[in-house]
Amino acid sequence: MTVGADHGDPAVADIVQRHAIYDVVARYCRGIDRVDMDLVRSAYHPDGIDHHTGFEGSIDEFVAWVEPALRGLAGTMHTMGNHVAEIRDCHAAVETYATAVHWVESTEDPRNFTSGVRYVDWMQYRQGRWAIVERWAVREWTRSEAGQFVNPGVAGPRPRRDGDDPLYRLQSRLEMR
Amino acid sequence: MTVGADHGDPAVADIVQRHAIYDVVARYCRGIDRVDMDLVRSAYHPDGIDHHTGFEGSIDEFVAWVEPALRGLAGTMHTMGNHVAEIRDCHAAVETYATAVHWVESTEDPRNFTSGVRYVDWMQYRQGRWAIVERWAVREWTRSEAGQFVNPGVAGPRPRRDGDDPLYRLQSRLEMR
Amino acid sequence: MTVGADHGDPAVADIVQRHAIYDVVARYCRGIDRVDMDLVRSAYHPDGIDHHTGFEGSIDEFVAWVEPALRGLAGTMHTMGNHVAEIRDCHAAVETYATAVHWVESTEDPRNFTSGVRYVDWMQYRQGRWAIVERWAVREWTRSEAGQFVNPGVAGPRPRRDGDDPLYRLQSRLEMR
Repeated sequence: MTVGADHGDPAVADIVQRHAIYDVVARYCRGIDRVDMDLVRSAYHPDGIDHHTGFEGSIDEFVAWVEPALRGLAGTMHTMGNHVAEIRDCHAAVETYATAVHWVESTEDPRNFTSGVRYVDWMQYRQGRWAIVERWAVREWTRSEAGQFVNPGVAGPRPRRDGDDPLYRLQSRLEMR
Repeated sequence: MTVGADHGDPAVADIVQRHAIYDVVARYCRGIDRVDMDLVRSAYHPDGIDHHTGFEGSIDEFVAWVEPALRGLAGTMHTMGNHVAEIRDCHAAVETYATAVHWVESTEDPRNFTSGVRYVDWMQYRQGRWAIVERWAVREWTRSEAGQFVNPGVAGPRPRRDGDDPLYRLQSRLEMR
Repeated sequence: MTVGADHGDPAVADIVQRHAIYDVVARYCRGIDRVDMDLVRSAYHPDGIDHHTGFEGSIDEFVAWVEPALRGLAGTMHTMGNHVAEIRDCHAAVETYATAVHWVESTEDPRNFTSGVRYVDWMQYRQGRWAIVERWAVREWTRSEAGQFVNPGVAGPRPRRDGDDPLYRLQSRLEMR
């Protein structure tokens, strides 16, 4: 197996793999939070399987399940923490801690909740890219936020799920360089 | 453009840039939380602009606005999560998730609050350093912590905003080596 | 001092050290959350000292104190954020932000709490490995979660503190490759 064999120093090859593996998880989170299903899908191989709270199935089934669920919410934020990849050739066991915040327009609604999750991912390197073959989204704890969220009260940059989100505008700016 | 051209392997140059860009955001957070305005300022280029909840302006105006706000609180903690930089030559679009906790002495006070933020940063590499040219602090959600915080009840290491914080004491220890 | 001197490019040596230092903190958190005291212990040198909320002492004393405390809880999650290492030869001053969630079976119990912590670590590189010589777990804020946590309501992957946790099953899968 020759993942990263084009780097003279094997330590560099290793670090490059780790960055690519981190990006898989970060891409998943960004895809979920911006409701960009192509981005979510890009985190999995086509035969990928997902085990979630309330869901079990293929990546195609996962997207069909999660997209309407996300569109029923005003927003989500999946914040990553500890990220550790154990790599052997083209296989990797990857654990990523995350805190997932979900909100709707009405602050009293029980659909406002935060959960602690460990993404436990079996990844493989195939045809030049790392992606998830099987994921367990291990739910650690769930906190109701009903009645906890408030309006910030003053104006400022607000998130969007379309091309006008500040991130997407900067990506366009970058591409025009 | 030759950012990192002194590294033989372009993958190394890339990773070195990514670490430098991560450090810009980490330095900002540390500066805010320790109320070290020189550190906050070092995260921006001199012509940097900041778009914040309740604020729009230059880095000089931002410091003038944020410092008294911070001094009116007992403490803050800006915890970073997902960090992704897209780099093209000496320009970068950088997204960093963060959870910002704010507290005052009285646990019942409405100024106790936590918010979810995405720092969306346009950075540039100029004169040997990456720094922010324009930032959008995108407020995702706000949770009131009035009546939620409690005293830990037992003694232990406590944070400080001066040279006696454990971090600053270790930095001094390191410099004396 | 020649930490990482086997890498031709000093930038590579530096990054390799940083990854190793990150792994020390990540290993500590995983050890605590899975109640794997060997893993916790591996984050410290044998003469390591820990300053915690409600505890001061050696790593041996820390393990003797923390293990029964953890077993008295249903689970914990120590999520890392900002991580910055300042390295000078074989010494390092390392700051890691973390959010620590603690829960018991009964959601009303006051032992349900979340705290914000900065791990301020003095690390040394000895006999081929970085580990903690002295740690200050600086407690920033404490939030009671009594009455806040809820059951997710639907089935899904759940955490375990033994070999059946999804992470440990993937590690076994990797070893069999």
